[in-house]
Amino acid sequence: MDESAPRQERLVFAGLVGGAQVLGLASVVLTAVWMGHYRGGFSWDGSSFQFNVHPLCMVLGLVFLQGDGQIHTDADTFIYYLHAPLELVGRVFRNEAKRNVKILHGIIHLLALVVSIVGIVAVFDFHRAAKIPDMYSLHSWCGMLTIVLFCVQWVMGLMFFLFPVASSWLRASYLPVHVFCGLALVVMSIGTSLLGITEKLLFSIMPSYSTFPAEGVLANVLGLVLVLFGVVLCYLITREEFRRPPNPEEESLSVHFKTLTEGGTPDSP
Amino acid sequence: MDESAPRQERLVFAGLVGGAQVLGLASVVLTAVWMGHYRGGFSWDGSSFQFNVHPLCMVLGLVFLQGDGQIHTDADTFIYYLHAPLELVGRVFRNEAKRNVKILHGIIHLLALVVSIVGIVAVFDFHRAAKIPDMYSLHSWCGMLTIVLFCVQWVMGLMFFLFPVASSWLRASYLPVHVFCGLALVVMSIGTSLLGITEKLLFSIMPSYSTFPAEGVLANVLGLVLVLFGVVLCYLITREEFRRPPNPEEESLSVHFKTLTEGGTPDSP
Repeated sequence: MDESAPRQERLVFAGLVGGAQVLGLASVVLTAVWMGHYRGGFSWDGSSFQFNVHPLCMVLGLVFLQGDGQIHTDADTFIYYLHAPLELVGRVFRNEAKRNVKILHGIIHLLALVVSIVGIVAVFDFHRAAKIPDMYSLHSWCGMLTIVLFCVQWVMGLMFFLFPVASSWLRASYLPVHVFCGLALVVMSIGTSLLGITEKLLFSIMPSYSTFPAEGVLANVLGLVLVLFGVVLCYLITREEFRRPPNPEEESLSVHFKTLTEGGTPDSP
Repeated sequence: MDESAPRQERLVFAGLVGGAQVLGLASVVLTAVWMGHYRGGFSWDGSSFQFNVHPLCMVLGLVFLQGDGQIHTDADTFIYYLHAPLELVGRVFRNEAKRNVKILHGIIHLLALVVSIVGIVAVFDFHRAAKIPDMYSLHSWCGMLTIVLFCVQWVMGLMFFLFPVASSWLRASYLPVHVFCGLALVVMSIGTSLLGITEKLLFSIMPSYSTFPAEGVLANVLGLVLVLFGVVLCYLITREEFRRPPNPEEESLSVHFKTLTEGGTPDSP
């Protein structure tokens, strides 16, 4: 699909991007309300108020920023769709901004990583002060796996796409794996958040949870909002018709790659 | 990619399909061991032994059968890859079996639905006997949403692809949505299973969970196996190079669809 993409399709794309923003922001706000209003607020003194920093940072960093960084920058789709209606301006911006978009992608994910690490330090620090053992629950296992793989994904992305360490052939082979792993990590982050919500509810309000208290309903709604955010995000990134068509530079890379796989002699290594 | 698909790629595909089978079966076996050995076994008498039927049926139905039904039949990929090495036989079988593959896909998913409904009846029946309220937890909300959408997906699939209710144009438009929703439902089923694991552990062994008892570790490992099953499944179904190339019948459908979207006059509605 090129600049002549049906207007309706662009509207659907813009609507889905807008919907994802609303859902992502809603999940951050709901977490802040839950921890701020129902769980007494935030502090950094080893108390349960320090624990409250953990859910907020994880939803903000690993879910919203990590997910949003993918909508806005995956294969330049966002830039393409937003600027395509401006026709020529869009074309120019789209080609010139390639490297800038990659840098923005890296920065958003670095920010996501930093916020997540603050969230993890908050909970480990709280556990130490309250003498609660670490890393025994399924939530902690899934969370640790996710954050370690997220670090690996970030470093790999940096090496492959921002610093020219890898050959064009390696980069072309790695790109779909990078996109798949990015989506898988957002889904794992959402799954881990749902586990965290269930753990927190059962630790805090187990006796009253079954009577549908406001806190329980709010946390359940937060869980559903996170699920919806994940579904919209995955739909946006996996649907063929929302993919930006390759620019001439990428076309030549593709031919180069084809030559290599079909046993021809490439012009350069 | 056609029959000349690199041998290495076919080996990777076969390895991933084999890996998914091992992970899917392992998740069912681990659930059976957890419920059978650590939770006292199975019965249908309203006791907690009846509850134990619930996790087993859900992992078997909504995760293993639903997921496996997609690997084996999504876009005939499995048939194509397994038979392609047999060259001519594969070609013949691939074209002739199209409708049979669809029927198999429908039957596996019907089986998944029936097993899941048994699992849901088991837990509602147990709740009624033990006077435990229903539908208050995030696990129950996610689970109910998943099973309702799974029923809708099954009925839509039946109407669109097995009974010729929809036009070719509608079928072609719906196919990618059907594949996306199928994958989303498996991922939601896995997420809901992880919530169920966490709930069951906190209800049953909360005081000892943090001391790494065998039951807790086994249930956590089950959670990770389910996550891995989901990752391998999604990778298999979303990677371009594992997709079966369209056969002539589908090619003509695609041309027909293109004519429609570009404003031409199709031969038939």
